[in-house]
Amino acid sequence: VTDAVETARFMAMKGAGYYSKVTVSARDAIDAATPSVIEAVHRLPIGDDGSPVRVADLGCADGGTSIGLWHQVLTALRQRVPGRAIEIVYTDLPQNDFSQLFRMLHGQTDIESYYGKIPNIYPFASATSFHQAIFPPSSLHLAFSAHASHYISKVPCPISEHVHMVGATEAERAAYEQTGSLEWERLLGLRARELVPGGRLCMLSFGIDEDGHYVGHTGGVSVFDTFNTLWRQLADEGGITHDEYLRTNFPQVFRTTEQFTAPLHDEKSDVRAAGLRLESIEWRIQECPFARSFKEHRDPERFAREYVPTLRSWSEPTFANGLSPDRSPHERLAVLDGFYGRYGQLVAKDPEGHKMDLVDILMTCVRE
Amino acid sequence: VTDAVETARFMAMKGAGYYSKVTVSARDAIDAATPSVIEAVHRLPIGDDGSPVRVADLGCADGGTSIGLWHQVLTALRQRVPGRAIEIVYTDLPQNDFSQLFRMLHGQTDIESYYGKIPNIYPFASATSFHQAIFPPSSLHLAFSAHASHYISKVPCPISEHVHMVGATEAERAAYEQTGSLEWERLLGLRARELVPGGRLCMLSFGIDEDGHYVGHTGGVSVFDTFNTLWRQLADEGGITHDEYLRTNFPQVFRTTEQFTAPLHDEKSDVRAAGLRLESIEWRIQECPFARSFKEHRDPERFAREYVPTLRSWSEPTFANGLSPDRSPHERLAVLDGFYGRYGQLVAKDPEGHKMDLVDILMTCVRE
Repeated sequence: VTDAVETARFMAMKGAGYYSKVTVSARDAIDAATPSVIEAVHRLPIGDDGSPVRVADLGCADGGTSIGLWHQVLTALRQRVPGRAIEIVYTDLPQNDFSQLFRMLHGQTDIESYYGKIPNIYPFASATSFHQAIFPPSSLHLAFSAHASHYISKVPCPISEHVHMVGATEAERAAYEQTGSLEWERLLGLRARELVPGGRLCMLSFGIDEDGHYVGHTGGVSVFDTFNTLWRQLADEGGITHDEYLRTNFPQVFRTTEQFTAPLHDEKSDVRAAGLRLESIEWRIQECPFARSFKEHRDPERFAREYVPTLRSWSEPTFANGLSPDRSPHERLAVLDGFYGRYGQLVAKDPEGHKMDLVDILMTCVRE
Repeated sequence: VTDAVETARFMAMKGAGYYSKVTVSARDAIDAATPSVIEAVHRLPIGDDGSPVRVADLGCADGGTSIGLWHQVLTALRQRVPGRAIEIVYTDLPQNDFSQLFRMLHGQTDIESYYGKIPNIYPFASATSFHQAIFPPSSLHLAFSAHASHYISKVPCPISEHVHMVGATEAERAAYEQTGSLEWERLLGLRARELVPGGRLCMLSFGIDEDGHYVGHTGGVSVFDTFNTLWRQLADEGGITHDEYLRTNFPQVFRTTEQFTAPLHDEKSDVRAAGLRLESIEWRIQECPFARSFKEHRDPERFAREYVPTLRSWSEPTFANGLSPDRSPHERLAVLDGFYGRYGQLVAKDPEGHKMDLVDILMTCVRE
């Protein structure tokens, strides 16, 4: 299961900046989080003592969505400590397209990089999962992560009547939440040990806000319900098997404020013991740029053409992994093309209410 | 020119361990160098003070050829400093297949990794060229590099009657040697500044020994002369254009002992000023495993089949880059298939004397 899940997590990063280009709203959400990360930089209790400072981007994909954030954050950090080398470490899983990341950082793509513009910066990458120790203890000053922590390392069970835990039965959902809880607590504990005293962890994550909203589900047509309806339709029509329908489960957990903060409030948790404290928390909805743009151009075909690729960019690996390994690559692609084609037809035919707003929680933690 | 050269340098690393599998003798040569690198570990003036230690593999490709060396070197280092975290940084250019490297390190291939077997090891990668600063000053304890430093960042001029500087005219050769000299001095100076005092740099490089031998040229049939003869033949027959012949130049410089040691002996050099001192030097010829095996099996067809792919693995990018960009990929491949096909026919028809022995210099330097 783990292998399949990890493939699912990373197949979407098709290289050549594909991921960044279709994830405009992810970049917008990261840009919106930037002032808070800069605030964290200002609070770092560091002097200009000449030793290297280390920052990290956890779950970086091709680095395109966060390049603007880092340009600003590194500029702020450079001003605070003009004499210290800054090491920036991008982490993701081995399947990630690190060549694309490095080409982008080293100015070999059309994306503007900070490298060479801000002096004394040393970029690195790691492919150690954030469910393991990535850095030596007390060697990290600032970590930022965007839209990565909702991925769990393995799914605890199939979801019988849906493709995502948001539509699971009560028992299934509890299993996902438990996995999500364990892995979140472990992730925070690992990072707490890696941070220097006074170091900051800024986690921008998909979550469930107090209105019950989550990404793709903010009133109007729910993305995950639509996925499920169309995938189920394919199963009922024989386009995919019932087994394949059952095997299709997003390896994701969306958490509530309570679930996000539980290990930080629990006096007996590993996370507290490791010294991690919650410093600030903010919720933010990032409006879907394609739905917004549709309100102006009013062209349903164009909306469908622009909107569905952004859904496909992150969801396709999960649907691909649900398909039987006995199918040829050609056959799989035909099924997936058909599936997203249907989504497009649905949007073109009845565009009102379709949107993928991001529902983000930004938590900043400090290691005491 | 630089882009083409960098592509040439790295196109050979076709991923999925291709490079490692056809470079048996490179791995053998690295294994032979291992005791000297372990000796360098023993000489590091470090205590078990709890702070992280950093080592690096410069020009690592897919990491397969040096994995055995690092298993032994990290084991030795772990014994010296049981309480210190060890960061190991693999460096190459952005085009390198870092996913393959990381999959291998994290045990997702059939190659055995040290990761998870030796405690408290943290792997990273960098895609900063070794002609630039990769690490902050005084932050590197031990660096090893194998068969990478003969690559120059750009060729100074075309070679009129050959494909490699070993067959260039006197003036052309002088230009290559000058580029080689400048880049070597710069590389050593950069590493000197990155090393901690007492840190060691172990460079295993292709060179020209006191008998005038170099890789593929140790008596018998010379590899580079054969490349040139066959490539020239294609030009004369119209299989490639004369322009393409001229554009085909290995971006490599093989250096003599005197050239390798010059910046370390020159009291006025940047390298000396940065504190780098030559500690030991050894030359070693690594016998061609395919030619050795032919002596036993005596099957010329089998020899050709096994031998030519190892030549192709590292030389193909240079010949591919020589071809006109106007040719279709299909056409290029056909030319290259024909070219290496001829080499194979030559070997199969008259196998005696064909071999690619490696002629290696291993230099260990210390930063005082």
